[in-house]
Amino acid sequence: MAAAHNYDVVGLGNAIVDVIATSTDDFLVRESLAKGGMALIDESRAHQLYASMGPATLSSGGSAANTIVGLASFGARTAFIGKVRNDELGAAFSHDIRAAGVHFGTPVSTKGPATARCLVLVTPDGERTMNTYLGACQHLTSDDVDPAIIAASNVVYLEGYLWDPPEAKKAFVKAADIAHGAGRQVALSLSDAFCVDRYRDEFLKLIRDRVVDIVFANEHELKSLYQTADFDTAVSAFRDEVVLGVVTRSEQGSIVVTREQTVSAPAASIENLVDTTGAGDLFAAGFLAGLARGLEYRDCARLGALAAAEVIQHVGARPLRNLADLAAEAGFGA
Amino acid sequence: MAAAHNYDVVGLGNAIVDVIATSTDDFLVRESLAKGGMALIDESRAHQLYASMGPATLSSGGSAANTIVGLASFGARTAFIGKVRNDELGAAFSHDIRAAGVHFGTPVSTKGPATARCLVLVTPDGERTMNTYLGACQHLTSDDVDPAIIAASNVVYLEGYLWDPPEAKKAFVKAADIAHGAGRQVALSLSDAFCVDRYRDEFLKLIRDRVVDIVFANEHELKSLYQTADFDTAVSAFRDEVVLGVVTRSEQGSIVVTREQTVSAPAASIENLVDTTGAGDLFAAGFLAGLARGLEYRDCARLGALAAAEVIQHVGARPLRNLADLAAEAGFGA
Repeated sequence: MAAAHNYDVVGLGNAIVDVIATSTDDFLVRESLAKGGMALIDESRAHQLYASMGPATLSSGGSAANTIVGLASFGARTAFIGKVRNDELGAAFSHDIRAAGVHFGTPVSTKGPATARCLVLVTPDGERTMNTYLGACQHLTSDDVDPAIIAASNVVYLEGYLWDPPEAKKAFVKAADIAHGAGRQVALSLSDAFCVDRYRDEFLKLIRDRVVDIVFANEHELKSLYQTADFDTAVSAFRDEVVLGVVTRSEQGSIVVTREQTVSAPAASIENLVDTTGAGDLFAAGFLAGLARGLEYRDCARLGALAAAEVIQHVGARPLRNLADLAAEAGFGA
Repeated sequence: MAAAHNYDVVGLGNAIVDVIATSTDDFLVRESLAKGGMALIDESRAHQLYASMGPATLSSGGSAANTIVGLASFGARTAFIGKVRNDELGAAFSHDIRAAGVHFGTPVSTKGPATARCLVLVTPDGERTMNTYLGACQHLTSDDVDPAIIAASNVVYLEGYLWDPPEAKKAFVKAADIAHGAGRQVALSLSDAFCVDRYRDEFLKLIRDRVVDIVFANEHELKSLYQTADFDTAVSAFRDEVVLGVVTRSEQGSIVVTREQTVSAPAASIENLVDTTGAGDLFAAGFLAGLARGLEYRDCARLGALAAAEVIQHVGARPLRNLADLAAEAGFGA
């Protein structure tokens, strides 16, 4: 049992290093990559695609990990659970998340596949197309879920991508059980429209069985969840669930839906769209930072927009500026 | 013997991956780091400093390697000689330089120290402070200098930093000998004022024995070479050497000095200084690209300024934009 520190949020997710290169649309077509999505690839495909892509920078990523680092940058107390191997990329991931002030103590795997990597291709329009080799993430099991950390965290944040590595969903369910047993809240990010397509029934069951209390989705994921092309239909179905729903719509801002109310907030203005990687992750970070500060939903959404705007104006999915400072500049007290 | 391709420039240098983090001036003081310089560190210090620095991105670097990649981006035909290990950072370095279009065939070391890394701390003013663990670079020997590639290259570009790993200077001298035997030119970058301080007499001997034909230096390096605090005194001494001398002066532009003439060129204007890492390397790339195109010195210096301006406006020492396109936009034909 770890010491009972208190955390605002603990994240559980795939521990991934992003390998980011610029790309043309032609390259995506030639490599049969679905623009804007996240595809799972095996090791040989990872090698082949890496060999054909351009010069890259390496930067820690992983959806929930990005959110947790964003929260830490807002000054929240955070922890992360995820699996890397004892290789150089694993060392980089571990360094980066700890250097951001996040507690990270998941045992490192010493055999088997290498630390996960996501080959991210950024097209001139700033859109990112992701190709993930899960590697060591496949060794995350429910044994890695430290009950003391979960019980000591106000919110457990889980990424839908955890449904991809077979063992991780058990870790997810265990974490949710412990959290609810301790009177905590459970948040889920739907991660990606293709991910929703793979696990729609299970995600709906998580929501309807009240395994999750807060759900983050973008417009595409929400439409996929309810298998509709009409946004209003999807929002209407979402409103009927007993959750706090948060829906992001890129430059159209976001809406927060509960059975009782619908609140909308604008996107933050940006000067230069460089790389959308991490936009949704950082929105969730800002929103949860707002909840941790006891703000109203509209202000939570504004903090989310602020964090998303920071991360899409540079390469990489982790904030380069201190988000607490940005929030203060935007008129939010600490 | 490799096939006798023709290259505009072959570079010989330390093959390094940059580990780049933002830093405060206070951190530099606390860690006793000389701002703006390059310090050599051993493995244990590399681990200690890495553990104490902030979240980082990994990006291929190495002074001569940056120059060669810049040249490739200008459309020049290039090759690189340098030593990595068969580890993940070595794979990243090799991928990045080949993906940039550079021929890179130096045998990879399979034992001994890991691929070299440079811990780069970027302060809010954009200045970088570098801490290099040479690792596998210490295994670069004259056996790695492929005579066919050297003889097939119009210019051999050598970094002064090669004087740090004990065996590499022999590789340097061998490459210069082969180049001159084949009627080629040899260029040297003085690398760093501290590096000049370590090897002043040897560098002056290289120049005066005509082992090198072209010398790149910044203002600080030139002053260190001639042990004077007065720039004009240093330039005057430089002019007396039988070399083509190229001196960069940050925002004050650059000057080209020979016995016969002194030509100056302005710096290129920038919007945002983000990270000066690679500024000198990319200036050399533009200058040599100009020479390869048969341009006059002033235009060579303008191409150098253009490339330096690109690289200091983002994190990392390799160009993110295609430099041939930038040159064309600035009115230089291909």
